[in-house]
Amino acid sequence: MKVIADLCVVPIGVGVSVSKYVAACERVLADAGLKTHMHAYGTNIEGEWDAVFNAIKRCHEVVHEMGSPRISSTLRLGTRVDRDQTMEEKVRSAQEKF
Amino acid sequence: MKVIADLCVVPIGVGVSVSKYVAACERVLADAGLKTHMHAYGTNIEGEWDAVFNAIKRCHEVVHEMGSPRISSTLRLGTRVDRDQTMEEKVRSAQEKF
Amino acid sequence: MKVIADLCVVPIGVGVSVSKYVAACERVLADAGLKTHMHAYGTNIEGEWDAVFNAIKRCHEVVHEMGSPRISSTLRLGTRVDRDQTMEEKVRSAQEKF
Amino acid sequence: MKVIADLCVVPIGVGVSVSKYVAACERVLADAGLKTHMHAYGTNIEGEWDAVFNAIKRCHEVVHEMGSPRISSTLRLGTRVDRDQTMEEKVRSAQEKF
Repeated sequence: MKVIADLCVVPIGVGVSVSKYVAACERVLADAGLKTHMHAYGTNIEGEWDAVFNAIKRCHEVVHEMGSPRISSTLRLGTRVDRDQTMEEKVRSAQEKF
Repeated sequence: MKVIADLCVVPIGVGVSVSKYVAACERVLADAGLKTHMHAYGTNIEGEWDAVFNAIKRCHEVVHEMGSPRISSTLRLGTRVDRDQTMEEKVRSAQEKF
Repeated sequence: MKVIADLCVVPIGVGVSVSKYVAACERVLADAGLKTHMHAYGTNIEGEWDAVFNAIKRCHEVVHEMGSPRISSTLRLGTRVDRDQTMEEKVRSAQEKF
Repeated sequence: MKVIADLCVVPIGVGVSVSKYVAACERVLADAGLKTHMHAYGTNIEGEWDAVFNAIKRCHEVVHEMGSPRISSTLRLGTRVDRDQTMEEKVRSAQEKF
């Protein structure tokens, strides 16, 4: 089952600047070979369900290892079985109707 | 790694009434032995990371098997390594300060 | 336009314990006369669109006034025009099909 | 109070293809003069609180007027009072630490 997800990891208890933790998660997702697009409030991720969720678990582990005692993430999570769809198609499809 | 999550599964392409799909997900979570609390816009889930995410994957599989061609879920996802915490404690802690 | 929402306010830069900020938001929502139900990962809110969103804005203002330099909230947001629905009905409807 | 938000509007009860509704929301946000960036699972929005939330309300109204009986949206919502920040800075800040 393929999934297109959108992940936003929020480390708590490490002060107001969280960009180094976000960067570490980008590294985890890249190392997992997943297709990603980072935007201003999260990261699009495309891949097989297990690969995506193993990487998300690794993000939490890494951010804790970096010293964050607490994390609150949010995730949007889309699957479909009627046809295959990519992140690029989703954007293009809306832009064409704009 | 323990997680407290909040899951909202939205089946797309099956009409306006989605409660039977929500009920099927509740069944999946209960069968997985997870601690849950259903509210008006999702379900709190408490358990070990892998057990929680195996159940969430199963929810998507079951809702697709029931005939929904597309699903868009949202998930909040909290982990902490400074101390153990339960769903009940989170609620009580805020209520005490009310 | 009536809305059923689910709000989770996460103050950033104030350490690991956030319950007093959550409690302050509960107070704001109660003072606004909104129907609410607090759970382990947010608060269900039912009311007219403008009343709900004025209260959510006030939550952010109050949490900043309490000393939090940064806030990252998440919101689920449901409207329907086919019929009226309450928070209790949403839960009951899924429970009946369980 | 300035806000950086991320909005994902999900029309329910109009079938599996939702791109024309997403495009209509993009039009609403553009007409409101807001700075936006559409990605594969939502749209970043930057602006003053009231302008952003008036536009989000208008998105729900327009999608209902187009025939969708029910909508379930999700929103991430960031405010900060310690300093000004733009969408571009948020992305660049994480990329520099990658």
